[in-house]
Amino acid sequence: MQSLEFYRKEFLKYLEMNIRPREPRNLYDPISYILHLGGKRLRPILVLISAELFGADYKKALDAAMAIEVFHNFSLVHDDIMDEAPLRRGKPSVHKKWDVNTGILSGDAMLIASYQFLESYDGMLLPQLFELFNTTAIGVCEGQQFDIDFETRKDVQVVEYLRMIELKTSILIAAALKMGGIIAQTTAENQKLIYEFGRNLGIAFQLQDDYLDAFGDPETFGKQVGGDILENKKTFLYLKALELASAKDRETLWALYHTKNTAPEDKVNTVKAIFTASGAKELILQEVRKYTDLAFGCLENIEAPEEKKQILYDFGRSLLHRSR
Amino acid sequence: MQSLEFYRKEFLKYLEMNIRPREPRNLYDPISYILHLGGKRLRPILVLISAELFGADYKKALDAAMAIEVFHNFSLVHDDIMDEAPLRRGKPSVHKKWDVNTGILSGDAMLIASYQFLESYDGMLLPQLFELFNTTAIGVCEGQQFDIDFETRKDVQVVEYLRMIELKTSILIAAALKMGGIIAQTTAENQKLIYEFGRNLGIAFQLQDDYLDAFGDPETFGKQVGGDILENKKTFLYLKALELASAKDRETLWALYHTKNTAPEDKVNTVKAIFTASGAKELILQEVRKYTDLAFGCLENIEAPEEKKQILYDFGRSLLHRSR
Repeated sequence: MQSLEFYRKEFLKYLEMNIRPREPRNLYDPISYILHLGGKRLRPILVLISAELFGADYKKALDAAMAIEVFHNFSLVHDDIMDEAPLRRGKPSVHKKWDVNTGILSGDAMLIASYQFLESYDGMLLPQLFELFNTTAIGVCEGQQFDIDFETRKDVQVVEYLRMIELKTSILIAAALKMGGIIAQTTAENQKLIYEFGRNLGIAFQLQDDYLDAFGDPETFGKQVGGDILENKKTFLYLKALELASAKDRETLWALYHTKNTAPEDKVNTVKAIFTASGAKELILQEVRKYTDLAFGCLENIEAPEEKKQILYDFGRSLLHRSR
Repeated sequence: MQSLEFYRKEFLKYLEMNIRPREPRNLYDPISYILHLGGKRLRPILVLISAELFGADYKKALDAAMAIEVFHNFSLVHDDIMDEAPLRRGKPSVHKKWDVNTGILSGDAMLIASYQFLESYDGMLLPQLFELFNTTAIGVCEGQQFDIDFETRKDVQVVEYLRMIELKTSILIAAALKMGGIIAQTTAENQKLIYEFGRNLGIAFQLQDDYLDAFGDPETFGKQVGGDILENKKTFLYLKALELASAKDRETLWALYHTKNTAPEDKVNTVKAIFTASGAKELILQEVRKYTDLAFGCLENIEAPEEKKQILYDFGRSLLHRSR
């Protein structure tokens, strides 16, 4: 088993070989652009690691890794249009650098291209990879739709929020890991466990992201601290605080999320105080721990050499030990 | 072999069974809406006919027919956004009835759903259907991009236009027919011939549509006669007339397509006169004939019972004998 850095480099080499200028340029240049914006490439790396964990050569998993990464970037391009996000990884998003129509059509081509990378798998592996990929892709769309719906709904429940982040974030991580398991033809039980490891870790990761967005260290947290609060995002913290806060705090919180004339800094501070006083802050940390434990529990039960599992333990811990 | 009407009814029954209300409604309702707007269902019917032509039960081809129809409707939803088309089949287009974001996301889900219908084919058929579907889908996107590029380009060549309509229209018809052939496991030669039949017929059909748009009978032509001219669309007629017209006519034609202050009726009449005088009108009719002959030539060479081929001869002729 190699290091994360080794798999990242191998993946990037393969990406370079496969993403080349093509006609019509206005369709393919944006694809090359977004795929070269960087990012940690966590999802494709997980495909490679999982394949090797279960005894296959990571090279056999490179096309599946491409499928996952191209699909992920398709979803970023279309999400950025829907969210009117001007930036992606600090650079202009595709629909800003080109235009909305280019973003739509290039995104479509990326979604199709992600499927094309599965063509290299034979008639025994293809049906399994294809079904998993389809189910995951449609689930990610459902997650995005729930996220959009939540913006205007006033009765979102915590359990619905958890299902949304599971669909929008976790199942792609889970599927990446399971694809490695399919390619290595490991047992059905191992496939289930590696999927559940990824699904739980993904939920833990997203909940921690919610936590850090409010309580992270501005010095080390990548995004603006308090961003979710200023955008009135109905995260776990908000929904749980609405459930648990005193009647007075609940009213304040509701008002702050449904009116526009509070100074940003005051709003963030008041909301954070309510998140803390209500117990929502403590609870989200418990949830992060719960899902992390569930994830590592799955990993323990996987039948594979312990020394090979180590990279996934390390990976999980590194994800969850960002600054708080 | 049954009638076109029989296959249409069977397909519509299957569509009803497969397109049902689902959560999240804002994702799935638009899909149901666009798939119930009607249309002739030519592409899915061709999948069924082709399967039976080569000896398979059409029921085995119903999922492939769904894949083709759902894909086609995905492309309509996204194209309507890009073209800012308010209507589709006389009803509000998806992005008008809902909004652009809903159109983007529902379209994405339809593209994925179209792939899901291929899941029912086993490890022997799936790789062939999958590769054909991928190649076709990416080609349709390329065709749409060329079409968009042509709007602003001033040096479009006739041969490029023909390639564009081939990608945007013909290859999906060709792929529909070939999928039936794959499902029936007919010979590679037959698969090639039925694909070429569809490809040539598709080009003939699109060229005839260009012809009718200028010279069709307003009483029987479905769309507004002269619509392409008023939109300055660089069709075969326009590009060929630019090539062949006298220097003075060429100048007039160019000016009419690049300025805005001509009365619509005058513009249509002057342009049509130049299409006729330049010989472009005569030439496009020759091209329709040429591609039709090529299509029927392929059909002749297909090894299948003549009585079964009859429905495709009739289909081809009915497509090309709309009012002119």
